[in-house]
Amino acid sequence: MKKNYEFVKNAAGRKIPTEVNGKKQVPFQGVHGYKPVGVKAAPLVSSCTDYPMDGNKVLPSIKAALKQAGLKDGMTISSHHHFRNGDLVMNQVFSAAAEMGVKDLMWFPSAAFPCHEPMIEHMESGVIHHIEGSLNGPLGRYASEGKMNGLAVLRSHGGRWQSVQDGEVHIDIAILAAPTADSFGNATGDRGPSTCGLLGFGLVDSLYADKVIVVTDNLVPFPCIPWQIQGQNVDHVVVLDKVGDPEKIVSGTTQLTKSPDRLFIAELTAKFVQAAGIMRDGFSFQAGAGGTALAFAIYLKEMMIEAGVKARFVRGGSTKYLVEMLEEGLTDYILDGQTFDLDGVRSMRENDEHVNTSPFTSYNWHGKGNFASMVDVVVLGATEVDVNFNANVVTHSDGQMLHGIGGWQNCLFSKCTILPIPAFRDRIPVIVEEVTTIVGPGELVDVIVTERGIAINPLRTDLIEATKDSGLPIRSIQELKVEIDDLIGGVPQKPKLTDEPIGIVKWVDGTVIDTIFKVKSEK
Amino acid sequence: MKKNYEFVKNAAGRKIPTEVNGKKQVPFQGVHGYKPVGVKAAPLVSSCTDYPMDGNKVLPSIKAALKQAGLKDGMTISSHHHFRNGDLVMNQVFSAAAEMGVKDLMWFPSAAFPCHEPMIEHMESGVIHHIEGSLNGPLGRYASEGKMNGLAVLRSHGGRWQSVQDGEVHIDIAILAAPTADSFGNATGDRGPSTCGLLGFGLVDSLYADKVIVVTDNLVPFPCIPWQIQGQNVDHVVVLDKVGDPEKIVSGTTQLTKSPDRLFIAELTAKFVQAAGIMRDGFSFQAGAGGTALAFAIYLKEMMIEAGVKARFVRGGSTKYLVEMLEEGLTDYILDGQTFDLDGVRSMRENDEHVNTSPFTSYNWHGKGNFASMVDVVVLGATEVDVNFNANVVTHSDGQMLHGIGGWQNCLFSKCTILPIPAFRDRIPVIVEEVTTIVGPGELVDVIVTERGIAINPLRTDLIEATKDSGLPIRSIQELKVEIDDLIGGVPQKPKLTDEPIGIVKWVDGTVIDTIFKVKSEK
Repeated sequence: MKKNYEFVKNAAGRKIPTEVNGKKQVPFQGVHGYKPVGVKAAPLVSSCTDYPMDGNKVLPSIKAALKQAGLKDGMTISSHHHFRNGDLVMNQVFSAAAEMGVKDLMWFPSAAFPCHEPMIEHMESGVIHHIEGSLNGPLGRYASEGKMNGLAVLRSHGGRWQSVQDGEVHIDIAILAAPTADSFGNATGDRGPSTCGLLGFGLVDSLYADKVIVVTDNLVPFPCIPWQIQGQNVDHVVVLDKVGDPEKIVSGTTQLTKSPDRLFIAELTAKFVQAAGIMRDGFSFQAGAGGTALAFAIYLKEMMIEAGVKARFVRGGSTKYLVEMLEEGLTDYILDGQTFDLDGVRSMRENDEHVNTSPFTSYNWHGKGNFASMVDVVVLGATEVDVNFNANVVTHSDGQMLHGIGGWQNCLFSKCTILPIPAFRDRIPVIVEEVTTIVGPGELVDVIVTERGIAINPLRTDLIEATKDSGLPIRSIQELKVEIDDLIGGVPQKPKLTDEPIGIVKWVDGTVIDTIFKVKSEK
Repeated sequence: MKKNYEFVKNAAGRKIPTEVNGKKQVPFQGVHGYKPVGVKAAPLVSSCTDYPMDGNKVLPSIKAALKQAGLKDGMTISSHHHFRNGDLVMNQVFSAAAEMGVKDLMWFPSAAFPCHEPMIEHMESGVIHHIEGSLNGPLGRYASEGKMNGLAVLRSHGGRWQSVQDGEVHIDIAILAAPTADSFGNATGDRGPSTCGLLGFGLVDSLYADKVIVVTDNLVPFPCIPWQIQGQNVDHVVVLDKVGDPEKIVSGTTQLTKSPDRLFIAELTAKFVQAAGIMRDGFSFQAGAGGTALAFAIYLKEMMIEAGVKARFVRGGSTKYLVEMLEEGLTDYILDGQTFDLDGVRSMRENDEHVNTSPFTSYNWHGKGNFASMVDVVVLGATEVDVNFNANVVTHSDGQMLHGIGGWQNCLFSKCTILPIPAFRDRIPVIVEEVTTIVGPGELVDVIVTERGIAINPLRTDLIEATKDSGLPIRSIQELKVEIDDLIGGVPQKPKLTDEPIGIVKWVDGTVIDTIFKVKSEK
């Protein structure tokens, strides 16, 4: 069933298909090049006349709710990923759809996890036509092998909001798993046996989907407070025994890196932030929940205490390390998009200064501004960076699509974007001549920190000037690359790619920045 | 400039104009008769590219912001009324518009107050073409006299949300006065020198207006927490010395009635609620901030304490009396739409169980349900009630339009709607043969409580049954009417009305339920 694609070259010099999954695509036109014209998607007008006056929207099962919502062939079913690898709902949803004999569905999760491996069967049987959303683990492999009917469409968290808001993706039925809810559909993530913190990734679904089904295992009397999801946007409520596996939803403790190299990189990153004058009273930062990013936050915290500096806000993904900063008075606020551990969940529930955000407030490029560009410094990962500072997070140097974008593209707009990365992974250099997939344009990547030195983007003369006498090992990216390549004995071979696309990468404005091609098999 | 109107009869038997202020009107079709078809209004897609990356949207003056927002002839300017009679912003806005030479604006406030008398000059000079919104005081008189270019369009709080959501009213520029805001446009009402509690009446404006201007006198560093209005919906921020007169925004103390008759009515109402079995553990109620409603809440509270009953939630407008109930453990939550005194504001800021609502959550009829129909009992006022239980809140028995609707129509959907009203006002009976203006259809009005007895709507056989042995003075409404009319010596003359409409009353679904006609002058 291979399709013939027409390709055009976009402003990043990449070959991208003109049409994907039946929809015309707009090529990337530069970071600020594309201006949307027109209006947002317009959801259907409802009437209270069609909803129970006593507010009770509970139906007996997922299947009953799907029937009531009018599930039929070709529809788009969406879900959020706040339960991460502990989600017990979506496999049940697609099993019910299969039992109902429905075909050609599009699944539109904010991310899929290894627990969703059963979806492969549904793709094989035709219940699911294809998936648009971050594909981690087995689903990523399946798509990488070109087995999916239709291409993977990788979007950032902000890009997912933008795509729904702008009507690029129309959601027929949204399934919103909720740790606590009332019978009217008000729902929250910050309490209940399957607590996950917040439900922000499902917010846009609740606002724009034709039908919204809340699925919970903890029904409380009206009103469910807080109402992260508002019942006025919800059609049906289903109560299950268990919607999530708590241990897989939040890890309890987040793992700090133990690698001496990574610890060194993290410390170097913190030192750079201080040397560049970013770490000052009232500043802000965002760091992920990866081992290096966590170590960075801990080093930075020590430096803040020593210097007597207090942040105005830190962005989560929250962990116990950020919560400690809040509770020790080192920041006024945590602005949080997802909680990574139980301390994060507890703090969100207990501290008024631990504030929920959504992809709308944080990342949506088609709003009247968003928070990402107001953050003083953000620390992110990457699978590859090239000598023009272009960076990749979705494919490995072997060409396999193995990661989603998350908020990564959106965060690039911070005032200073730093990628702390090891010089090698499995003896493959991370700094390359040209990235396999451009996910972030080089002009937005400011600093690369490796264990062999720090490279500052030549565009950031201000940072170069600020740190020139810092004593930090600042070097050119070319110099770093040569040294690393020499150490492993020359530039490694690039993966051989076919001309068959298996996915595309959207930029934050909905244009296509790159294509992921299938890797040539060895035989 | 009198227009010729065509009229049709609606399902309430009232004569209503087919077109008002240039827009075709849909006649009222019964409480559940009208089903909307189609989609919500679709706001323009924005792009962060057009907004400052550092988030600073502050402009030097109201005039600068109006210019930047592209103010021009014929536009619709909206505002909320949380500052009530203490608003210092909107007169400045229209003065600036007048200085800019702009004409024919429509002002779309959620309500206007006596402090807005200067708008009459702007209507005389043609800067403002007409006003759609609750018109209290001098503006009500001006419109009642037929002097406005265009008709008054009276909408409930829920109806205002519905009209914007459904695209019946398109807001070009929203002006959102805010007691506290940051330079990005995040804004809150619960703190600052001009604090007013919340900004819920302006929420729909922030979501649907083409341009949104936040005006504050208390600029705080980003982020302003909580963000009742989200900066991602805001175009410009203006900082003034003073946006509101605190004493006129909230009264500090709310006035209990001292009239023995009103106190008796309030007590009778509370006794009825208990006798009908409504006052039970987990119940809910809503009562306004009028003198009788406050007294009702106080009587009810005493009964609750005595009976050991705790409410699940009470609806605000909040006052110190509701706050006391919350803080004394007599209710789990206050779900609040506006704060009427400083205790309400403080509680909203301090108590997590004192929760903000908006006309969307509480009242919008074109949502997937709303809170109003889940409230066990609501206590409301009325200027007139007729023998069919139809009720009026916008005109007096003299035919003058003197009040807005507020949340009144929306609240009628509660499980039990009680109107405690005096038998007479200024020796004019309040129970009439036919109300001057139908604002609420009789089928939604369950109980009338007067100092001369209680009348239960014959449709509510359940309430009649529940209270038949209560010993309360339950009588038929006809019987009450005859007795009252006899006391004043016969039925008073009805006002003589012209056939010139000066306003219309919208039902919660956007249809027209009644017309307000100009009163014939005596000479």
